[in-house]
Amino acid sequence: MTLQPIAGGITAAHGFRVAGVSAGIKASGAPDVALIVPDAPAAGAALFTTNQVQAAPVTVSRDHLAASGGRVSAVLVNSGCANACTGDEGMRVARGSAHALAARIGCAPEHVLIASTGVIGVALNLDTIRAGIDRAHGALSTDGHPAAIAIMTTDIGPKEYAVRVETPSGAFHVGGMAKGAGMIEPLLATMLGFVTTDAHVAPPVLHRVLASVVDRTFNAITVDGECSTNDTVLALASGASGVRIEGADAEQALAAGLEAVCRELALMIVRGGEGATKLVAIRVTGAATTAAAKQAARTVANSPLVKTAVHGGDPNWGRLVAATGRSGVPFVLAHAVVRIGPVVLFRDGQPFDAEAPRAAEYLRGDDIEIQIDLGTGGPHDATVWTCDLSAEYVRINGEYRT
Amino acid sequence: MTLQPIAGGITAAHGFRVAGVSAGIKASGAPDVALIVPDAPAAGAALFTTNQVQAAPVTVSRDHLAASGGRVSAVLVNSGCANACTGDEGMRVARGSAHALAARIGCAPEHVLIASTGVIGVALNLDTIRAGIDRAHGALSTDGHPAAIAIMTTDIGPKEYAVRVETPSGAFHVGGMAKGAGMIEPLLATMLGFVTTDAHVAPPVLHRVLASVVDRTFNAITVDGECSTNDTVLALASGASGVRIEGADAEQALAAGLEAVCRELALMIVRGGEGATKLVAIRVTGAATTAAAKQAARTVANSPLVKTAVHGGDPNWGRLVAATGRSGVPFVLAHAVVRIGPVVLFRDGQPFDAEAPRAAEYLRGDDIEIQIDLGTGGPHDATVWTCDLSAEYVRINGEYRT
Repeated sequence: MTLQPIAGGITAAHGFRVAGVSAGIKASGAPDVALIVPDAPAAGAALFTTNQVQAAPVTVSRDHLAASGGRVSAVLVNSGCANACTGDEGMRVARGSAHALAARIGCAPEHVLIASTGVIGVALNLDTIRAGIDRAHGALSTDGHPAAIAIMTTDIGPKEYAVRVETPSGAFHVGGMAKGAGMIEPLLATMLGFVTTDAHVAPPVLHRVLASVVDRTFNAITVDGECSTNDTVLALASGASGVRIEGADAEQALAAGLEAVCRELALMIVRGGEGATKLVAIRVTGAATTAAAKQAARTVANSPLVKTAVHGGDPNWGRLVAATGRSGVPFVLAHAVVRIGPVVLFRDGQPFDAEAPRAAEYLRGDDIEIQIDLGTGGPHDATVWTCDLSAEYVRINGEYRT
Repeated sequence: MTLQPIAGGITAAHGFRVAGVSAGIKASGAPDVALIVPDAPAAGAALFTTNQVQAAPVTVSRDHLAASGGRVSAVLVNSGCANACTGDEGMRVARGSAHALAARIGCAPEHVLIASTGVIGVALNLDTIRAGIDRAHGALSTDGHPAAIAIMTTDIGPKEYAVRVETPSGAFHVGGMAKGAGMIEPLLATMLGFVTTDAHVAPPVLHRVLASVVDRTFNAITVDGECSTNDTVLALASGASGVRIEGADAEQALAAGLEAVCRELALMIVRGGEGATKLVAIRVTGAATTAAAKQAARTVANSPLVKTAVHGGDPNWGRLVAATGRSGVPFVLAHAVVRIGPVVLFRDGQPFDAEAPRAAEYLRGDDIEIQIDLGTGGPHDATVWTCDLSAEYVRINGEYRT
């Protein structure tokens, strides 16, 4: 199996048409409605926010996927309004918009999925979204770019990525688009990811592969530890390449393709984090389980003291040790190792402060790797990606909404 | 039982002499060694950091309290050096300094407790600390102020508080001092609290009362979710008032006195948090257990989006709802209530955005209360205190150490 990046995004996989248009949800007039329409019903799988407060579109999409057994004929995405915390009216509009798209496409409503991002506490206007659906339907094409733009909120730019995967039974493609981590007006870090493939795969297999990939990609990033009411990652498989995903090798090839796309999109989200100036990978090794490694890495990645130290270029192993020590994961300082980039700053219970200037020099870069061995001799590791914490983050999120 | 604030700090309770002197640990020459010496061996109880990385003085004090059965003849505190992550050398110096103080006082070494705060990764110099012990011993008096100054690191000022408790069997006093939340050079938020009383109480009772009080005070504050290697809260009881703490009523009176002092010291720590401009109480009600209420309150209190919104004066109920929703505690949005000060912003699944200007006006104050009812009908509540998150926090913690 070989894997190579290719141009394009969500339509790099064959068998999909998409659109992105302005429907008037955003006062600015910027594009705010996207459609993804497979040429024939596609296999679908999705993962949703674990927040107990779930927006109406999350509830509707979860219900529809269960009812259809993972068959998807169309996906509607809007930005500018999250339709979250909107009670019965929000549910009515969410269901109504799925019905409107189903009628336009000619499919059952449960074959339609929806996702929203933007202001919370305000319900979508059904007439507005209906008009947007009509306009987007008329604009469907194999150019993925307008859709990647239409799902943006405060994102710095569109996030797209695609790869081609060669296997003994032929080549298939995986493409995707995402938005995230710009926390918009009433201000949640909604993360949306849409991944397509032209491999042929059964919905349960697609779900299994997606879940494991998302665990190592979209679920391994953190800007500020927040978790939105609307987070959704959706995968669709058209089968248009004719390559069938059956057996362990083929499943591994699909996982590799999805992982390459999801990881790159996830890292684009971190790099675009509010006020972010650096991408920081926290790799924890020597753990008894992958979950333990990830818990320690996440604690370090969300530590304000670590994030400000990275921002300031301070090779502060003390903050790394202290954050790891409070993570709840077994940690043996006498055998622990702390590295910033290639520089070992702490090992065998001893700091190497003479190395600090070299580590400070490394921290001037944009792409930082920090590695912590827990000193417990376990075989497992995990990486969590985050960004630094800057005064700009506080400025962006401390401004009054109106 | 009545309780009233009185002047003074750690020596407001009778039966203690204290000192604070400069020993040369801090390059600035500022005071850095404090002693607390009861006139006769006192009952002692302490709570230590839950971080798995524990500084040498924490290990030594824990061992000594266990060996002495809660009898304390002297306490040595230094600032400017945390003696954490210092391996065998750090332990040697920690034990050596306890021995030196024991020799000076004329008691067994296990009747001496020690605490340190400051730079980590550097061991204390034993000669320096010995000279400091001698100097402090010569300066012992019933003025608590120099000691409160000597335990400071980047604190804005000393933190002292005291109360007098009248009970049917007589009056006793509780006093205390604390340092915290200025994260100093290599930069940990070490919190130290020392509380004295002249009530007469057995060590196991003192420990039980202290543990429950600390849970609602020092353990109910958070500046940035960090937890240091050196955190210590220590209570000493001299018995000098002659009031014996025996039976439920007397225990309750002691708890009330300790709680008043510990709460006020804890709030001083939050108000003095780096870059803090507001004290924010997050009160969660309607929980099935106190622990659940505290978990939800702590999640909200540590949310960077909530803390930046408070800083910016933005009455953002959406961020409060989203943080509560990801806290892992049962939360029913349809029955939840969100209040900022006296203003209800969300109830019965509905936002009241017309109230936002009133809430924004309230947020201009320095002392903010936010209340969230989980909507699950439970009888328990908890309060966690925090501060807002300002660009100044990032500036302080993002500067290079040297």
